[in-house]
Amino acid sequence: MKKHLFFFGLIMLVMNSIHAQANYKVVFDLTSRDSVNQQAVIREIGLITDASPNAKLEVVIYGQGLDLAVNGRSSLQSQVEKIISGNKATVKVCAMTMKRNNITKEQLVPGIEVVPDGIYEIISKQQQGWGYIKVGH
Amino acid sequence: MKKHLFFFGLIMLVMNSIHAQANYKVVFDLTSRDSVNQQAVIREIGLITDASPNAKLEVVIYGQGLDLAVNGRSSLQSQVEKIISGNKATVKVCAMTMKRNNITKEQLVPGIEVVPDGIYEIISKQQQGWGYIKVGH
Amino acid sequence: MKKHLFFFGLIMLVMNSIHAQANYKVVFDLTSRDSVNQQAVIREIGLITDASPNAKLEVVIYGQGLDLAVNGRSSLQSQVEKIISGNKATVKVCAMTMKRNNITKEQLVPGIEVVPDGIYEIISKQQQGWGYIKVGH
Repeated sequence: MKKHLFFFGLIMLVMNSIHAQANYKVVFDLTSRDSVNQQAVIREIGLITDASPNAKLEVVIYGQGLDLAVNGRSSLQSQVEKIISGNKATVKVCAMTMKRNNITKEQLVPGIEVVPDGIYEIISKQQQGWGYIKVGH
Repeated sequence: MKKHLFFFGLIMLVMNSIHAQANYKVVFDLTSRDSVNQQAVIREIGLITDASPNAKLEVVIYGQGLDLAVNGRSSLQSQVEKIISGNKATVKVCAMTMKRNNITKEQLVPGIEVVPDGIYEIISKQQQGWGYIKVGH
Repeated sequence: MKKHLFFFGLIMLVMNSIHAQANYKVVFDLTSRDSVNQQAVIREIGLITDASPNAKLEVVIYGQGLDLAVNGRSSLQSQVEKIISGNKATVKVCAMTMKRNNITKEQLVPGIEVVPDGIYEIISKQQQGWGYIKVGH
Protein backbone atom coordinates (compact mmCIF):
# COMPACT_ATOMS: atom_id res chain seq x y z
CA MET A 1 0.00 0.00 0.00
CA LYS A 2 2.84 2.36 0.81
CA LYS A 3 4.17 1.71 -2.63
CA HIS A 4 0.82 2.61 -4.11
CA LEU A 5 0.82 5.86 -2.23
CA PHE A 6 4.35 6.57 -3.38
CA PHE A 7 3.40 6.22 -7.00
CA PHE A 8 0.20 8.12 -6.57
CA GLY A 9 2.15 10.96 -4.99
CA LEU A 10 4.63 10.85 -7.82
CA ILE A 11 1.87 11.03 -10.39
CA MET A 12 0.27 13.96 -8.58
CA LEU A 13 3.60 15.77 -8.51
CA VAL A 14 4.04 15.35 -12.23
CA MET A 15 0.46 16.38 -12.94
CA ASN A 16 0.99 19.42 -10.81
CA SER A 17 4.01 20.44 -12.76
CA ILE A 18 1.74 20.57 -15.78
CA HIS A 19 -1.11 22.47 -14.25
CA ALA A 20 0.74 24.73 -11.90
CA GLN A 21 2.30 26.74 -14.67
CA ALA A 22 1.30 29.64 -12.55
CA ASN A 23 4.24 31.53 -13.92
CA TYR A 24 3.27 34.11 -16.46
CA LYS A 25 3.93 32.88 -20.00
CA VAL A 26 2.08 34.29 -22.96
CA VAL A 27 2.47 34.15 -26.70
CA PHE A 28 0.77 37.06 -28.46
CA ASP A 29 -0.50 36.42 -32.00
CA LEU A 30 -0.19 39.67 -33.98
CA THR A 31 -1.52 39.76 -37.53
CA SER A 32 -2.82 43.31 -37.45
CA ARG A 33 -1.51 46.52 -38.95
CA ASP A 34 -4.04 48.46 -36.89
CA SER A 35 -2.17 50.78 -34.55
CA VAL A 36 -4.77 50.28 -31.81
CA ASN A 37 -3.86 46.61 -31.75
CA GLN A 38 -0.13 47.19 -32.00
CA GLN A 39 -0.19 49.78 -29.22
CA ALA A 40 -2.31 47.44 -27.10
CA VAL A 41 0.23 44.64 -27.15
CA ILE A 42 3.08 47.05 -26.41
CA ARG A 43 1.16 48.54 -23.49
CA GLU A 44 0.22 45.11 -22.16
CA ILE A 45 3.82 43.93 -22.24
CA GLY A 46 4.83 46.98 -20.23
CA LEU A 47 2.11 46.48 -17.64
CA ILE A 48 2.73 42.75 -17.29
CA THR A 49 6.48 43.06 -16.88
CA ASP A 50 6.11 45.94 -14.41
CA ALA A 51 4.05 43.66 -12.17
CA SER A 52 5.76 40.35 -13.02
CA PRO A 53 9.37 40.95 -14.04
CA ASN A 54 9.89 37.22 -14.59
CA ALA A 55 7.01 36.87 -17.03
CA LYS A 56 7.93 35.15 -20.27
CA LEU A 57 6.32 36.99 -23.13
CA GLU A 58 6.63 36.52 -26.84
CA VAL A 59 5.07 38.35 -29.75
CA VAL A 60 4.77 36.45 -33.02
CA ILE A 61 4.24 38.74 -35.99
CA TYR A 62 2.91 37.44 -39.29
CA GLY A 63 0.46 38.31 -42.02
CA GLN A 64 -0.77 41.91 -41.91
CA GLY A 65 1.35 42.63 -38.83
CA LEU A 66 4.63 42.61 -40.72
CA ASP A 67 5.32 46.36 -40.85
CA LEU A 68 5.74 46.51 -37.08
CA ALA A 69 8.83 44.32 -37.55
CA VAL A 70 10.37 46.30 -40.42
CA ASN A 71 12.90 49.06 -39.85
CA GLY A 72 11.47 52.49 -40.60
CA ARG A 73 7.92 51.35 -41.23
CA SER A 74 6.26 51.83 -37.85
CA SER A 75 5.80 54.79 -35.56
CA LEU A 76 6.02 52.31 -32.70
CA GLN A 77 9.51 51.11 -33.62
CA SER A 78 11.31 52.74 -30.69
CA GLN A 79 8.87 51.10 -28.28
CA VAL A 80 9.46 47.71 -29.90
CA GLU A 81 13.21 48.25 -29.57
CA LYS A 82 12.83 49.11 -25.88
CA ILE A 83 10.83 45.94 -25.26
CA ILE A 84 13.57 43.88 -26.84
CA SER A 85 16.56 45.67 -25.32
CA GLY A 86 14.90 45.60 -21.90
CA ASN A 87 14.31 41.83 -22.23
CA LYS A 88 10.62 42.37 -21.61
CA ALA A 89 9.56 40.13 -24.47
CA THR A 90 10.98 38.34 -27.46
CA VAL A 91 9.63 39.45 -30.79
CA LYS A 92 9.60 36.98 -33.66
CA VAL A 93 8.52 37.38 -37.25
CA CYS A 94 7.44 34.72 -39.74
CA ALA A 95 9.94 34.03 -42.57
CA MET A 96 7.12 33.07 -44.94
CA THR A 97 5.44 36.43 -44.41
CA MET A 98 8.78 38.18 -44.98
CA LYS A 99 9.42 36.26 -48.20
CA ARG A 100 5.96 37.01 -49.58
CA ASN A 101 6.58 40.70 -48.94
CA ASN A 102 10.22 40.72 -50.13
CA ILE A 103 11.58 41.67 -46.74
CA THR A 104 15.06 40.46 -45.84
CA LYS A 105 16.49 39.88 -42.39
CA GLU A 106 18.62 43.02 -42.79
CA GLN A 107 15.47 45.15 -43.03
CA LEU A 108 14.09 44.09 -39.65
CA VAL A 109 14.00 46.18 -36.50
CA PRO A 110 17.20 45.22 -34.62
CA GLY A 111 16.69 42.37 -32.18
CA ILE A 112 13.66 40.86 -33.85
CA GLU A 113 14.12 37.14 -34.47
CA VAL A 114 13.03 35.22 -37.54
CA VAL A 115 11.08 31.95 -37.26
CA PRO A 116 10.43 29.73 -40.29
CA ASP A 117 6.68 29.59 -39.65
CA GLY A 118 4.80 31.95 -37.35
CA ILE A 119 1.82 29.66 -36.80
CA TYR A 120 4.03 26.73 -35.88
CA GLU A 121 5.90 28.94 -33.43
CA ILE A 122 2.60 29.87 -31.78
CA ILE A 123 1.20 26.36 -31.51
CA SER A 124 4.53 25.06 -30.21
CA LYS A 125 4.33 27.56 -27.38
CA GLN A 126 0.72 26.56 -26.73
CA GLN A 127 1.78 22.93 -26.51
CA GLN A 128 4.46 23.91 -24.02
CA GLY A 129 1.76 25.34 -21.79
CA TRP A 130 2.09 29.01 -22.67
CA GLY A 131 -1.08 31.05 -22.67
CA TYR A 132 -2.31 32.35 -26.01
CA ILE A 133 -3.70 35.79 -26.71
CA LYS A 134 -4.88 36.85 -30.14
CA VAL A 135 -4.30 40.58 -30.43
CA GLY A 136 -7.36 42.23 -31.92
CA HIS A 137 -10.37 44.38 -31.18
CA MET B 1 2.38 -8.01 -13.29
CA LYS B 2 -0.99 -7.29 -11.71
CA LYS B 3 0.61 -4.42 -9.90
CA HIS B 4 1.96 -3.06 -13.17
CA LEU B 5 -1.49 -3.17 -14.65
CA PHE B 6 -2.88 -1.44 -11.61
CA PHE B 7 -0.50 1.45 -11.94
CA PHE B 8 -0.91 1.62 -15.67
CA GLY B 9 -4.65 1.82 -15.17
CA LEU B 10 -4.18 4.51 -12.58
CA ILE B 11 -2.02 6.56 -14.91
CA MET B 12 -4.54 6.19 -17.70
CA LEU B 13 -7.30 7.34 -15.38
CA VAL B 14 -5.37 10.43 -14.44
CA MET B 15 -4.46 11.17 -18.06
CA ASN B 16 -8.08 10.82 -18.95
CA SER B 17 -9.07 13.32 -16.36
CA ILE B 18 -6.90 15.79 -18.23
CA HIS B 19 -8.09 15.03 -21.70
CA ALA B 20 -11.69 14.17 -21.06
CA GLN B 21 -12.61 17.67 -19.98
CA ALA B 22 -15.64 17.02 -22.09
CA ASN B 23 -17.52 19.41 -19.90
CA TYR B 24 -18.09 22.70 -21.57
CA LYS B 25 -15.70 25.35 -20.22
CA VAL B 26 -14.84 28.43 -22.21
CA VAL B 27 -13.19 31.73 -21.49
CA PHE B 28 -14.14 34.42 -23.99
CA ASP B 29 -11.56 37.16 -24.63
CA LEU B 30 -13.43 40.39 -25.39
CA THR B 31 -11.41 43.46 -26.36
CA SER B 32 -13.86 44.85 -28.87
CA ARG B 33 -16.30 47.73 -28.72
CA ASP B 34 -17.85 46.52 -31.96
CA SER B 35 -21.49 45.68 -31.28
CA VAL B 36 -21.37 42.76 -33.73
CA ASN B 37 -18.73 41.15 -31.53
CA GLN B 38 -20.45 42.02 -28.28
CA GLN B 39 -23.81 40.70 -29.51
CA ALA B 40 -22.09 37.55 -30.79
CA VAL B 41 -20.71 36.60 -27.40
CA ILE B 42 -24.04 37.31 -25.71
CA ARG B 43 -25.89 35.18 -28.29
CA GLU B 44 -23.33 32.38 -27.99
CA ILE B 45 -23.66 32.27 -24.21
CA GLY B 46 -27.43 31.96 -24.59
CA LEU B 47 -27.19 29.16 -27.13
CA ILE B 48 -24.54 27.24 -25.19
CA THR B 49 -26.35 27.40 -21.87
CA ASP B 50 -29.67 26.45 -23.49
CA ALA B 51 -28.07 23.24 -24.75
CA SER B 52 -25.61 22.67 -21.87
CA PRO B 53 -26.98 24.20 -18.66
CA ASN B 54 -23.89 23.08 -16.77
CA ALA B 55 -21.44 24.80 -19.09
CA LYS B 56 -18.91 27.00 -17.34
CA LEU B 57 -18.53 30.20 -19.27
CA GLU B 58 -16.57 33.33 -18.50
CA VAL B 59 -16.18 36.57 -20.39
CA VAL B 60 -13.05 38.60 -19.70
CA ILE B 61 -13.40 42.22 -20.79
CA TYR B 62 -10.35 44.42 -21.25
CA GLY B 63 -8.94 46.99 -23.65
CA GLN B 64 -11.48 48.38 -26.11
CA GLY B 65 -14.22 46.17 -24.67
CA LEU B 66 -14.55 48.19 -21.46
CA ASP B 67 -17.78 50.05 -22.19
CA LEU B 68 -19.77 46.81 -22.18
CA ALA B 69 -18.90 46.57 -18.46
CA VAL B 70 -19.78 50.15 -17.53
CA ASN B 71 -23.21 51.13 -16.27
CA GLY B 72 -25.13 53.20 -18.81
CA ARG B 73 -22.63 52.89 -21.61
CA SER B 74 -23.93 49.94 -23.60
CA SER B 75 -27.22 49.18 -25.31
CA LEU B 76 -26.57 45.54 -24.42
CA GLN B 77 -26.45 46.17 -20.67
CA SER B 78 -29.76 44.48 -19.85
CA GLN B 79 -28.62 41.37 -21.70
CA VAL B 80 -25.34 41.35 -19.76
CA GLU B 81 -27.29 41.67 -16.53
CA LYS B 82 -29.54 38.74 -17.50
CA ILE B 83 -26.50 36.57 -18.22
CA ILE B 84 -25.12 37.33 -14.78
CA SER B 85 -28.37 37.09 -12.83
CA GLY B 86 -29.23 33.84 -14.63
CA ASN B 87 -25.82 32.37 -13.73
CA LYS B 88 -25.17 31.71 -17.40
CA ALA B 89 -21.66 33.14 -17.34
CA THR B 90 -19.38 35.12 -15.11
CA VAL B 91 -18.28 38.44 -16.49
CA LYS B 92 -14.96 39.89 -15.37
CA VAL B 93 -13.26 43.14 -16.22
CA CYS B 94 -9.59 44.06 -16.02
CA ALA B 95 -8.66 46.51 -13.25
CA MET B 96 -5.78 47.91 -15.29
CA THR B 97 -8.14 48.77 -18.13
CA MET B 98 -10.53 50.40 -15.63
CA LYS B 99 -7.75 52.45 -14.08
CA ARG B 100 -6.48 53.68 -17.44
CA ASN B 101 -10.00 54.83 -18.27
CA ASN B 102 -10.79 56.25 -14.83
CA ILE B 103 -13.60 53.81 -14.18
CA THR B 104 -14.29 52.82 -10.59
CA LYS B 105 -15.90 49.64 -9.34
CA GLU B 106 -19.05 51.61 -8.51
CA GLN B 107 -19.52 52.47 -12.18
CA LEU B 108 -19.69 48.87 -13.35
CA VAL B 109 -22.77 46.98 -14.45
CA PRO B 110 -24.01 45.21 -11.29
CA GLY B 111 -22.61 41.70 -10.91
CA ILE B 112 -19.51 42.20 -13.03
CA GLU B 113 -16.38 41.14 -11.17
CA VAL B 114 -13.03 42.90 -11.23
CA VAL B 115 -9.79 40.98 -11.83
CA PRO B 116 -6.39 42.61 -11.37
CA ASP B 117 -5.16 41.62 -14.83
CA GLY B 118 -7.44 40.43 -17.64
CA ILE B 119 -4.74 38.64 -19.58
CA TYR B 120 -3.58 36.73 -16.53
CA GLU B 121 -7.18 35.72 -15.82
CA ILE B 122 -7.47 34.34 -19.36
CA ILE B 123 -4.23 32.39 -19.38
CA SER B 124 -4.98 30.98 -15.92
CA LYS B 125 -8.21 29.57 -17.25
CA GLN B 126 -6.37 28.17 -20.29
CA GLN B 127 -3.89 26.47 -17.97
CA GLN B 128 -6.80 24.95 -16.06
CA GLY B 129 -7.99 23.34 -19.28
CA TRP B 130 -10.68 25.79 -20.27
CA GLY B 131 -11.19 26.40 -23.96
CA TYR B 132 -10.28 29.83 -25.30
CA ILE B 133 -12.28 31.84 -27.81
CA LYS B 134 -11.17 35.24 -29.00
CA VAL B 135 -14.26 37.23 -29.82
CA GLY B 136 -13.82 38.99 -33.15
CA HIS B 137 -14.81 38.96 -36.78
CA MET C 1 13.91 0.20 -6.95
CA LYS C 2 13.94 -1.18 -10.45
CA LYS C 3 10.17 -1.21 -10.29
CA HIS C 4 10.19 2.43 -9.26
CA LEU C 5 12.33 3.30 -12.23
CA PHE C 6 10.06 1.32 -14.50
CA PHE C 7 7.02 3.26 -13.42
CA PHE C 8 8.84 6.55 -13.49
CA GLY C 9 9.91 5.82 -17.05
CA LEU C 10 6.38 4.89 -17.93
CA ILE C 11 5.05 8.13 -16.49
CA MET C 12 7.64 10.13 -18.37
CA LEU C 13 6.70 8.37 -21.60
CA VAL C 14 3.07 9.23 -21.12
CA MET C 15 3.86 12.81 -20.19
CA ASN C 16 5.95 13.09 -23.29
CA SER C 17 3.15 11.91 -25.44
CA ILE C 18 1.22 14.91 -24.18
CA HIS C 19 3.89 17.51 -24.64
CA ALA C 20 5.63 16.21 -27.71
CA GLN C 21 2.68 16.85 -29.95
CA ALA C 22 5.30 18.10 -32.31
CA ASN C 23 3.04 17.06 -35.12
CA TYR C 24 1.31 19.97 -36.71
CA LYS C 25 -2.32 20.18 -35.58
CA VAL C 26 -4.23 23.42 -35.76
CA VAL C 27 -7.84 24.43 -35.51
CA PHE C 28 -8.56 27.77 -37.17
CA ASP C 29 -11.43 29.82 -35.76
CA LEU C 30 -13.04 31.75 -38.61
CA THR C 31 -15.84 34.18 -37.81
CA SER C 32 -14.94 36.80 -40.38
CA ARG C 33 -16.49 37.71 -43.70
CA ASP C 34 -13.45 39.91 -44.45
CA SER C 35 -11.74 38.54 -47.56
CA VAL C 36 -8.30 39.43 -46.16
CA ASN C 37 -8.95 37.02 -43.30
CA GLN C 38 -10.50 34.33 -45.48
CA GLN C 39 -7.65 34.50 -47.98
CA ALA C 40 -5.13 34.41 -45.14
CA VAL C 41 -6.39 31.10 -43.77
CA ILE C 42 -6.51 29.58 -47.27
CA ARG C 43 -2.96 30.73 -47.97
CA GLU C 44 -1.74 29.48 -44.60
CA ILE C 45 -3.25 26.04 -45.17
CA GLY C 46 -1.44 25.84 -48.50
CA LEU C 47 1.90 26.87 -47.03
CA ILE C 48 1.63 24.57 -44.03
CA THR C 49 0.66 21.49 -46.04
CA ASP C 50 3.38 22.18 -48.63
CA ALA C 51 5.97 22.00 -45.86
CA SER C 52 4.23 19.43 -43.62
CA PRO C 53 2.02 17.14 -45.71
CA ASN C 54 0.95 15.27 -42.58
CA ALA C 55 -0.28 18.36 -40.78
CA LYS C 56 -3.78 18.03 -39.39
CA LEU C 57 -5.66 21.24 -40.07
CA GLU C 58 -9.26 22.15 -39.47
CA VAL C 59 -11.20 25.33 -40.16
CA VAL C 60 -14.31 25.93 -38.07
CA ILE C 61 -16.62 28.49 -39.64
CA TYR C 62 -19.32 30.19 -37.61
CA GLY C 63 -20.86 33.60 -37.04
CA GLN C 64 -19.95 36.16 -39.70
CA GLY C 65 -17.81 33.62 -41.56
CA LEU C 66 -20.76 31.63 -42.86
CA ASP C 67 -20.77 32.79 -46.49
CA LEU C 68 -17.41 31.12 -47.13
CA ALA C 69 -19.21 27.82 -46.54
CA VAL C 70 -22.22 28.50 -48.76
CA ASN C 71 -22.33 27.46 -52.40
CA GLY C 72 -22.17 30.43 -54.72
CA ARG C 73 -21.56 33.06 -52.07
CA SER C 74 -17.79 33.37 -52.02
CA SER C 75 -15.20 34.22 -54.64
CA LEU C 76 -12.88 31.87 -52.77
CA GLN C 77 -15.13 28.83 -53.19
CA SER C 78 -12.91 27.00 -55.70
CA GLN C 79 -9.97 27.37 -53.32
CA VAL C 80 -12.00 25.98 -50.45
CA GLU C 81 -13.03 23.04 -52.65
CA LYS C 82 -9.38 22.36 -53.56
CA ILE C 83 -8.40 22.34 -49.89
CA ILE C 84 -11.08 19.77 -49.17
CA SER C 85 -10.57 17.58 -52.24
CA GLY C 86 -6.80 17.64 -51.69
CA ASN C 87 -7.28 16.55 -48.06
CA LYS C 88 -5.31 19.57 -46.92
CA ALA C 89 -7.79 20.51 -44.20
CA THR C 90 -11.24 19.65 -43.01
CA VAL C 91 -13.73 22.49 -43.12
CA LYS C 92 -16.60 22.47 -40.66
CA VAL C 93 -19.50 24.85 -40.23
CA CYS C 94 -21.68 25.45 -37.19
CA ALA C 95 -25.26 24.18 -37.47
CA MET C 96 -26.54 26.91 -35.15
CA THR C 97 -25.09 29.58 -37.42
CA MET C 98 -26.68 27.86 -40.44
CA LYS C 99 -30.07 27.67 -38.75
CA ARG C 100 -30.00 31.33 -37.75
CA ASN C 101 -29.28 32.23 -41.38
CA ASN C 102 -31.71 29.73 -42.92
CA ILE C 103 -28.98 27.78 -44.67
CA THR C 104 -29.55 24.07 -45.22
CA LYS C 105 -26.93 21.36 -45.64
CA GLU C 106 -27.75 21.19 -49.36
CA GLN C 107 -26.62 24.79 -49.81
CA LEU C 108 -23.10 24.21 -48.52
CA VAL C 109 -19.94 24.03 -50.59
CA PRO C 110 -19.47 20.31 -51.33
CA GLY C 111 -17.29 18.55 -48.78
CA ILE C 112 -17.90 20.95 -45.93
CA GLU C 113 -19.01 19.14 -42.78
CA VAL C 114 -21.64 20.33 -40.33
CA VAL C 115 -20.99 20.33 -36.57
CA PRO C 116 -23.77 21.00 -34.06
CA ASP C 117 -21.82 23.75 -32.29
CA GLY C 118 -18.76 25.49 -33.73
CA ILE C 119 -17.41 26.68 -30.40
CA TYR C 120 -17.66 23.22 -28.87
CA GLU C 121 -15.85 21.79 -31.88
CA ILE C 122 -13.03 24.29 -31.35
CA ILE C 123 -12.62 23.75 -27.64
CA SER C 124 -12.76 19.98 -28.09
CA LYS C 125 -9.83 20.21 -30.45
CA GLN C 126 -7.99 22.46 -27.98
CA GLN C 127 -8.56 19.89 -25.25
CA GLN C 128 -7.13 17.21 -27.53
CA GLY C 129 -3.92 19.23 -27.78
CA TRP C 130 -4.49 20.93 -31.09
CA GLY C 131 -3.12 24.43 -31.49
CA TYR C 132 -5.64 27.25 -31.80
CA ILE C 133 -5.42 30.18 -34.18
CA LYS C 134 -8.05 32.88 -34.32
CA VAL C 135 -8.17 34.19 -37.85
CA GLY C 136 -8.27 37.97 -37.82
CA HIS C 137 -6.26 41.09 -38.44
